[in-house]
Amino acid sequence: MGSRRERKHGRRRDAEDHAPVETVTRAVQPLNRLPAYEFAPEEVLAKIHDVSMMILSEVGIAFLDEESQEILKAHGAVVKDDIATFDPELVMKYVSMAPAQFTQLARNPEQNVIIGGDHICFAPVYGPPFVLDRERGRREATLKDFQNFVKLTYMSPYLHHSGGTVVEPTDEPVLTRHLDMLFSHIKYSDKPFMGSVMSGENAEDSVKMAEIVFGAAEIRENPALISLINISSPRQLDDRMLAALKVYAKARQATIITPFLLSGAMAPAAVAGTVAQLNAEALAGIAFAQMVNPGTPVVYGAFQATTDLRSGSPVFGGPESQQALYLSAQLARRYGLPFRSGGGLVSSKIPDAQAGYESVMSMLPAVMGKVNFVLHGAGWLENGLSAGYEKFILDCELLGMYHKFMQGVDFSDHGFALESLRTVPPGGHHLGTEHTMGVFRTAFYTAEAFDYNSAEQWAEEGSKDAYVRATKTYKELLKNYQPPALDADVEQRLRDFMAQRKESLSR
Amino acid sequence: MGSRRERKHGRRRDAEDHAPVETVTRAVQPLNRLPAYEFAPEEVLAKIHDVSMMILSEVGIAFLDEESQEILKAHGAVVKDDIATFDPELVMKYVSMAPAQFTQLARNPEQNVIIGGDHICFAPVYGPPFVLDRERGRREATLKDFQNFVKLTYMSPYLHHSGGTVVEPTDEPVLTRHLDMLFSHIKYSDKPFMGSVMSGENAEDSVKMAEIVFGAAEIRENPALISLINISSPRQLDDRMLAALKVYAKARQATIITPFLLSGAMAPAAVAGTVAQLNAEALAGIAFAQMVNPGTPVVYGAFQATTDLRSGSPVFGGPESQQALYLSAQLARRYGLPFRSGGGLVSSKIPDAQAGYESVMSMLPAVMGKVNFVLHGAGWLENGLSAGYEKFILDCELLGMYHKFMQGVDFSDHGFALESLRTVPPGGHHLGTEHTMGVFRTAFYTAEAFDYNSAEQWAEEGSKDAYVRATKTYKELLKNYQPPALDADVEQRLRDFMAQRKESLSR
Repeated sequence: MGSRRERKHGRRRDAEDHAPVETVTRAVQPLNRLPAYEFAPEEVLAKIHDVSMMILSEVGIAFLDEESQEILKAHGAVVKDDIATFDPELVMKYVSMAPAQFTQLARNPEQNVIIGGDHICFAPVYGPPFVLDRERGRREATLKDFQNFVKLTYMSPYLHHSGGTVVEPTDEPVLTRHLDMLFSHIKYSDKPFMGSVMSGENAEDSVKMAEIVFGAAEIRENPALISLINISSPRQLDDRMLAALKVYAKARQATIITPFLLSGAMAPAAVAGTVAQLNAEALAGIAFAQMVNPGTPVVYGAFQATTDLRSGSPVFGGPESQQALYLSAQLARRYGLPFRSGGGLVSSKIPDAQAGYESVMSMLPAVMGKVNFVLHGAGWLENGLSAGYEKFILDCELLGMYHKFMQGVDFSDHGFALESLRTVPPGGHHLGTEHTMGVFRTAFYTAEAFDYNSAEQWAEEGSKDAYVRATKTYKELLKNYQPPALDADVEQRLRDFMAQRKESLSR
Repeated sequence: MGSRRERKHGRRRDAEDHAPVETVTRAVQPLNRLPAYEFAPEEVLAKIHDVSMMILSEVGIAFLDEESQEILKAHGAVVKDDIATFDPELVMKYVSMAPAQFTQLARNPEQNVIIGGDHICFAPVYGPPFVLDRERGRREATLKDFQNFVKLTYMSPYLHHSGGTVVEPTDEPVLTRHLDMLFSHIKYSDKPFMGSVMSGENAEDSVKMAEIVFGAAEIRENPALISLINISSPRQLDDRMLAALKVYAKARQATIITPFLLSGAMAPAAVAGTVAQLNAEALAGIAFAQMVNPGTPVVYGAFQATTDLRSGSPVFGGPESQQALYLSAQLARRYGLPFRSGGGLVSSKIPDAQAGYESVMSMLPAVMGKVNFVLHGAGWLENGLSAGYEKFILDCELLGMYHKFMQGVDFSDHGFALESLRTVPPGGHHLGTEHTMGVFRTAFYTAEAFDYNSAEQWAEEGSKDAYVRATKTYKELLKNYQPPALDADVEQRLRDFMAQRKESLSR
């Protein structure tokens, strides 16, 4: 990461070429030009859909919030003992009101992102209470760490979104830390960011801060927040998540309705059953959001891993999770909904070989399944319990490779290098051909965090593994960080709002 | 690796359930039940084909062997200044004579492998002159190392093939080491193996040793050898490879015709041009093999990486290589030919995070592109210059995961766990359901080389990364190795043959 070579990639090249020179590399949201991997045929998808409809119509979903239950009833669902059941037609009627694609605003309009269609948006890790770096080890995350990850994300050309709770700032009071997190996203980055879902009140604070930055009318045109609504699988939405969901839906801010399932624990120990349950839960949440405010932007989320049934531990990056992800992505496409999944999810405690294997195994289905919003795109370690500084650097390299991969292949005559094919003799080489000289800098992705030296050279330079090398990279990036300009008036209004809220919340 | 859980997978389960209990885990060749990933549409494949035909008909392929040139001319090719040009119809006529699928014999018939169709066969690394283990570092490979990798391969349930030059036994004389390698494959394993391609004479020795083990008539029915014929890209087959190819084709032993290209050096610095050249080279070799002996089994091979155009170093696991692999696999399918690619190819010097990322990035396209023969399935490091003991263990785990992945998903009512979906209440769990108890052992793949403990437990056990943990695994496997029985008469005849050949070769 860190070079400006990605300017040569992506669809916004022309616009960018006329932009003023910047000291920071711009992230350019790529189009995923690949065909989606169709893991299962239509008849299988139809069967999963039918099982999901059975769940929704026969056994139902618990909505643990009275107002939500009233909304459900008013729109045709049956609610009994906190559990809502839905006619399939009713669910699909409301699901169909959700937009297939929307734009999320960034305070730098060049950093706006499109969520849906062939667009893919990578956001960093979300939620870890711990951080890990090689020199200081594993420790509780602080606001300083939070800001560091926002800065690193801002500087990456391969992350298009600042994310949300990049780490949990455990040194800040629980009641007010959402304010510091939001402010940090706004102050230290100009990429789009996520809102708080800790409570309805926090969600309202998030909306108000977005209004200060973007304007109240503007964010009703295009959302300035996207927020993660986790479903407490199996089949339950709690009052906290429902409160946040209602606030965001009413304000037309985007939400990602995400069942969080460990197969074997919160879902059956089987891929088909897991996906059917996940689908039912996601559709219920999405339909509910549309009942609150028809047309409000929502994303179909899927967050699934398996359980080691001997120890009860979660297992990320396993083969069944890859299967489940492809299936969920197909279902979301079938419903015409934007789709979110995880990214480089690993169980390893450190960025070792295990983490490398697991990262790609969980990230690749996101790319080939044509996920639209990848949350946990960089930095995830230890089942999500810690965010790794070095892991973040290595994951960004993986994202860089996939940026190149997703561009597809140039099948023009130039891409075939016809003249070279004709003229380089048997046993000759292409190193000095006109074609090679012309594409010298852009032909192949060069991973800066990876080592391509000879074994001898590598030994001479200290036999440093990828983990060791990445320490230097993240430290240099943080040292060279320059904040994007922020309007002084906007900053003052944000600070005033936070001060007032902190006072009120600490009363 | 090492458990017997894979018996529950795969298509030979029923046969196996009646087999006598064995101390060694049997490898069960899986069916790849996944749909292939179709990276490019038919019109693109047709264009690549056309460019390849232009290469074959207009600029041609050098065959640096007089007898081969005579064969080519006798079958309708035009040869001038060592370069053969082919009418497209002529090439395709001979290519179409190659079988779409064949069985390679193993001395244990249960270990026979099918090459082609939906079958996938994983073989270990091939060719490294160095080995690496964590404790002794990087050093020249010896016959002892060769035998160790044969033993480890024999013990892996996820490698179906013993491979060929698993490492180069540099402590044995160049002229005779092929005999020791072949004997080691036969003695220390009962899986199928590869023949020597160092010269026509070595190929003849390989055939003779196969005849001793399997019978001369038997190996003409089904090949007992599969051998790697590398094309010296661009567009050149040298006399050594042609001599071996002729011997094997005449004896109806399988060959893998593999252009070896680094884009930017032996091929254009562009994916489309690289694939078109690779395709022309592979088809020329395949057509030639069919001219020598129509119907002889051949495999379409593709071995491609890119060049770091700044340093000239090879780069494995990059995004362009993934694209090229998907395209080559599609072309081979289009021609109805079995297909071979590389596997866990990495540039990293050690099994660190870089190696993990790179391994999956190069292995996954092999699985999703539905490759039939994966050579370098385990152990590859450092651009193929060294074979890693620990890397081998970690790669086998990856292969285990893909075995599970390739099985696909059970979409029966049982796979949906319908009863559990109906009865587990909102907020409840599936840990103790009848369904979960019933699938307890088989539901999810468990990677034995990966760590799923909590960070606390992991730290208590010494904070061992994957590299460190794998050292113990490979050492224990080698300690517990038991050779498969080998008929005493066959062994004596092999030893007599080797003694006679060694004497004759050292004269």
